[in-house]
Amino acid sequence: MSTDSRTPAADSDLQRALDAVGDPVRRSILRQLADADPWTIACGQFDLPVAKSTLTHHFRSLVDAGLLEQRDEGNRRMNRLVRDEFDRRFPGLLDLVLDQ
Amino acid sequence: MSTDSRTPAADSDLQRALDAVGDPVRRSILRQLADADPWTIACGQFDLPVAKSTLTHHFRSLVDAGLLEQRDEGNRRMNRLVRDEFDRRFPGLLDLVLDQ
Repeated sequence: MSTDSRTPAADSDLQRALDAVGDPVRRSILRQLADADPWTIACGQFDLPVAKSTLTHHFRSLVDAGLLEQRDEGNRRMNRLVRDEFDRRFPGLLDLVLDQ
Repeated sequence: MSTDSRTPAADSDLQRALDAVGDPVRRSILRQLADADPWTIACGQFDLPVAKSTLTHHFRSLVDAGLLEQRDEGNRRMNRLVRDEFDRRFPGLLDLVLDQ
């Protein structure tokens, strides 16, 4: 039987990407970001079916996967979708999420 | 803020697909199937870092996602990768798993 020869590091990167897009709340965040201009949505402004207090974990997962950039403006944390590098490494994956 | 307008059914199908490929054991099963001729690997023959007794759940996830077909031959359950329909519905996703 063939042994799986992929490197653990590459599969770990893929795991992080799949984890990020594998949750419906995070997919909704990504879609809302894609529909908006960069840096126009604050963390508290997303339309999501979960309590705002639970969102930190979701934002962190997206930042770790390289899909989300955040910056503080006054007392608001603004958000931007980052897709070039993600699209290069995982062709088609973000499009699946945004098009579905 | 824009509301997520995707249908729950479409996102449910995507969730099932992402769940199926979002686990390293299942990705290893898919890669071994892709490297072998159809119907040549029995369930007990995969080279995997988990106990064989835990594999039923993984096979079920892949069958549910439409990625795996199984048939019994004597006392062995043989496996085949099914990719045409999956590739049509989720372009690039299986390739990401197999190429990584």
